[in-house]
Amino acid sequence: MTDLALVYAVFADAAEAERIAALTVEERLAACANILGPIRSIYRWRGEIERADEIAVLFKTDAAHVAALRDRIAGLHSYDLPAIVDWPASASAAYAGWVADGLLDMPDHDRVS
Amino acid sequence: MTDLALVYAVFADAAEAERIAALTVEERLAACANILGPIRSIYRWRGEIERADEIAVLFKTDAAHVAALRDRIAGLHSYDLPAIVDWPASASAAYAGWVADGLLDMPDHDRVS
Amino acid sequence: MTDLALVYAVFADAAEAERIAALTVEERLAACANILGPIRSIYRWRGEIERADEIAVLFKTDAAHVAALRDRIAGLHSYDLPAIVDWPASASAAYAGWVADGLLDMPDHDRVS
Repeated sequence: MTDLALVYAVFADAAEAERIAALTVEERLAACANILGPIRSIYRWRGEIERADEIAVLFKTDAAHVAALRDRIAGLHSYDLPAIVDWPASASAAYAGWVADGLLDMPDHDRVS
Repeated sequence: MTDLALVYAVFADAAEAERIAALTVEERLAACANILGPIRSIYRWRGEIERADEIAVLFKTDAAHVAALRDRIAGLHSYDLPAIVDWPASASAAYAGWVADGLLDMPDHDRVS
Repeated sequence: MTDLALVYAVFADAAEAERIAALTVEERLAACANILGPIRSIYRWRGEIERADEIAVLFKTDAAHVAALRDRIAGLHSYDLPAIVDWPASASAAYAGWVADGLLDMPDHDRVS
């Protein structure tokens, strides 16, 4: 029904999560960011199973802005290869309208076709 | 493989999250609700960047019930325009069956085509 | 842009969440697992509305491994019918490549078509 997009990303600590969340909302690449709180990550890094305490954030944007938002988060992030994933989502027309109002006007050629 | 749907919504506080989560399960619009805990939201409201401490909940339902669930949450919510987003998901046939058993029988005309 | 998959599952306690998260990363069915922390679940069980304190985990894998990951989590889980849902997601080519590197080589016939 609407072309929203959710971006889930993981950050080194609360300060980084808050800084990047606020900046992407200020820059109108995300309409809203929910800092979900502390998480424990388990992953393989250079052949070893590693554990890290990190912070997860869920960003709300739309299909036209998701690539720009993902790139901006990656550019601001302290990791070389941050975990940033996204998926499409729906909402009521009213909420989707609120999201659209919070986002940058994208010239057509910048829209992700 | 199955037509489940996940609804992610944000509430003003734990009491509201628990009340609406319980009611939508009792009313068989959601089979299950996971109250994910405290989140910090950053968003733009009337031109200002705002921060709020809220509670996130993930509801599990299916494609036939997602619109009714979303509307019911919005109707019960204390905000005029609550953040309620949804997306399709899959699960094992056994779990999808459990979800279906927990949901209201929907006369065909009410099913979201 | 990529065929990642996210698996969201709920566990009885932190020890079970950590054990299964670590094992599925070691076994290369998930590239990464984020233990999201304590949640409060509300659901119907044998006709009664029940509440339980559980732990949620978000696993990152891809479309070729999601069914095997879901089955392995279910096999290791203490519940008879654990809540395990999944949905497709996208990421940058670099991150998707990192996920793929962390996963088991799947002979074509085992790939989920």
